[in-house]
Amino acid sequence: MDNVYKKIEVTGTSAKSMEEAVNQAVARAAQTIRHMRWFEVTEIRGAIEDNQVAQWQVTVKIGFALDD
Amino acid sequence: MDNVYKKIEVTGTSAKSMEEAVNQAVARAAQTIRHMRWFEVTEIRGAIEDNQVAQWQVTVKIGFALDD
Amino acid sequence: MDNVYKKIEVTGTSAKSMEEAVNQAVARAAQTIRHMRWFEVTEIRGAIEDNQVAQWQVTVKIGFALDD
Amino acid sequence: MDNVYKKIEVTGTSAKSMEEAVNQAVARAAQTIRHMRWFEVTEIRGAIEDNQVAQWQVTVKIGFALDD
Amino acid sequence: MDNVYKKIEVTGTSAKSMEEAVNQAVARAAQTIRHMRWFEVTEIRGAIEDNQVAQWQVTVKIGFALDD
Amino acid sequence: MDNVYKKIEVTGTSAKSMEEAVNQAVARAAQTIRHMRWFEVTEIRGAIEDNQVAQWQVTVKIGFALDD
Amino acid sequence: MDNVYKKIEVTGTSAKSMEEAVNQAVARAAQTIRHMRWFEVTEIRGAIEDNQVAQWQVTVKIGFALDD
Amino acid sequence: MDNVYKKIEVTGTSAKSMEEAVNQAVARAAQTIRHMRWFEVTEIRGAIEDNQVAQWQVTVKIGFALDD
Amino acid sequence: MDNVYKKIEVTGTSAKSMEEAVNQAVARAAQTIRHMRWFEVTEIRGAIEDNQVAQWQVTVKIGFALDD
Amino acid sequence: MDNVYKKIEVTGTSAKSMEEAVNQAVARAAQTIRHMRWFEVTEIRGAIEDNQVAQWQVTVKIGFALDD
Amino acid sequence: MDNVYKKIEVTGTSAKSMEEAVNQAVARAAQTIRHMRWFEVTEIRGAIEDNQVAQWQVTVKIGFALDD
Amino acid sequence: MDNVYKKIEVTGTSAKSMEEAVNQAVARAAQTIRHMRWFEVTEIRGAIEDNQVAQWQVTVKIGFALDD
Repeated sequence: MDNVYKKIEVTGTSAKSMEEAVNQAVARAAQTIRHMRWFEVTEIRGAIEDNQVAQWQVTVKIGFALDD
Repeated sequence: MDNVYKKIEVTGTSAKSMEEAVNQAVARAAQTIRHMRWFEVTEIRGAIEDNQVAQWQVTVKIGFALDD
Repeated sequence: MDNVYKKIEVTGTSAKSMEEAVNQAVARAAQTIRHMRWFEVTEIRGAIEDNQVAQWQVTVKIGFALDD
Repeated sequence: MDNVYKKIEVTGTSAKSMEEAVNQAVARAAQTIRHMRWFEVTEIRGAIEDNQVAQWQVTVKIGFALDD
Repeated sequence: MDNVYKKIEVTGTSAKSMEEAVNQAVARAAQTIRHMRWFEVTEIRGAIEDNQVAQWQVTVKIGFALDD
Repeated sequence: MDNVYKKIEVTGTSAKSMEEAVNQAVARAAQTIRHMRWFEVTEIRGAIEDNQVAQWQVTVKIGFALDD
Repeated sequence: MDNVYKKIEVTGTSAKSMEEAVNQAVARAAQTIRHMRWFEVTEIRGAIEDNQVAQWQVTVKIGFALDD
Repeated sequence: MDNVYKKIEVTGTSAKSMEEAVNQAVARAAQTIRHMRWFEVTEIRGAIEDNQVAQWQVTVKIGFALDD
Repeated sequence: MDNVYKKIEVTGTSAKSMEEAVNQAVARAAQTIRHMRWFEVTEIRGAIEDNQVAQWQVTVKIGFALDD
Repeated sequence: MDNVYKKIEVTGTSAKSMEEAVNQAVARAAQTIRHMRWFEVTEIRGAIEDNQVAQWQVTVKIGFALDD
Repeated sequence: MDNVYKKIEVTGTSAKSMEEAVNQAVARAAQTIRHMRWFEVTEIRGAIEDNQVAQWQVTVKIGFALDD
Repeated sequence: MDNVYKKIEVTGTSAKSMEEAVNQAVARAAQTIRHMRWFEVTEIRGAIEDNQVAQWQVTVKIGFALDD
């Protein structure tokens, strides 16, 4: 059978940067998912507190191979 | 680690209203998911029978916090 | 021949609710169309008068089976 | 000069229904804006608390005529 | 309770055709999911090797009924 | 007068392939429409039964010339 | 019953301008449709011949009131 | 501080042409806004009366520099 | 071999009108491209100077046949 | 009354990074707006000078609570 | 330097199938482009003649690696 | 003749950041293109290896002036 992949959608957060938010999303997903191959950013948002960006919230679709 | 959220996509149905359809989706998701925080409506459809709306079908993305 | 469906786009209106606007659209379409099966909401707008929502305008695509 | 309209984007909230959320948005906008003519729903979201929809959040673009 | 459905996103692949790629996605999903009802194609891509299409990659959302 | 075209939206179905579904849509439309010139695929979906693709459902917009 | 509107999609063409193409679409639709109220431009394309724009092709959705 | 711009959304109207509608939007905005730099057309609609285009309605986002 | 076409994306500009901007884009492309067949408008923007539209910027995808 | 929020669209710029551009947008908006709660990135562009990225231009919608 | 890829947009045609149309696009592109890696289907259209699909027209973006 | 611009689509990659990926895309394009003026980010993806983001892949449309 040819490979089949599943995509899940995860939102990572970070006080520091968009990249860090994506890294968090991938790191957390790694706790339960194996064979992750790629991600696609689908949304970039964030929280504002005290007139400053308090949190970056980046949503990614993560694609991973399903075991045969 | 900053919070990470997962989004799943669920379609609720109701013979009565769009709100009821969303409520059904959230209630059913609650049977297996904890820490639900928000939803986003992504699609509104429905079934027609005997020339009348027989069922509202509202799809929502539900965001919930992943445990650390 | 497998079934073939046609979709038409209709805007229903109501002073009361979004559901009522869709019901109006379906009821009116039923005067000339048979075998309606489903609808898809494509746009939600409305009129404002005297600082209040005066009319809900909901556009739906209605799918119906074409007779063989 | 032909009429010119401005559109602003407002998010109304309600514990009860989507229509109520839009009504709230329009009512609040009426405190500072005159000559409102129409609205367009651009986003439907909400908050979930205790496994139930706690708040409907409906974003509308509101169009109003600019005085000459 | 009215029916509730969940949608998951799966990418099937095939060296032969788009239909085969979708079939692969559905067949693989069937190993762990019951009550699948419909699919929606959301993306069609592919790999090119030696100046030829080497693999069709079709992503589908698969809707399935959740047990009560 | 320059040519004017109308577009209608039709969903063809087939147990076999996407192309066959489009062919069905065009063949059925031909029973009542003349001067068809082009089509645009707007949606690809399908039904799943017994863990297999049971039906391809392809929606096309069909453009045809209006007689003067 | 509140008003109900139908939208049809028509492509007008003109060698001269986009406005003329829309005018053509509306004029042709007027031969068979009554109570037209508004239009929405959904696509602007055209044909090129001899390195020049030979034809503007503007597609509009035309909304018209359905008689009670 | 680097430059910051604000975008507002304005709908201009004209009985004559799309360009004139945009000109009206910009001219009206100029009564209250300074430092306008660019516009982006986001929607083209219009009103039909007596089977003819009676009014072009073009919505633009207008970007202008905020003073430091 | 069936015909194959390539699409390129070009932004034409004009102080006068949208049509003129497209004409400029096509005329310039003609200096290096042969067999142009059609265009699709993908974006309409412009520059504002002294509170007036100073330049129309219309982006088109231009399709042209590739020689065998 | 339930809370009502307004969204404005602001483009921040920075020679350094996307995050910095968003920070600039929020900082500038803070000069005239209170109760900012969240932002949504809607567009990422930039200027190129001397074959290098000279400026990041990130557009955000900023949501803020309206006072009762 | 990390790899950089260019995407071009090509429309392949075929009297037979969508896959064949994509194959044609890739085969023709191979005459002038090296290092093609992937494609993304962006549009599916076709021509109708004598009430039948006469030609499938599938547009793909083709990604290829740029030489260092 | 008014200025005419061409847009090309390029994907830059970087192990480090999104900004770096865009810089790579612009730097590589500079080897063959002159008069680059602006870019627009159209897609953000990436590769995952060993449960970590291994590569940022940012696609930009680059606009450059065509010589007269």
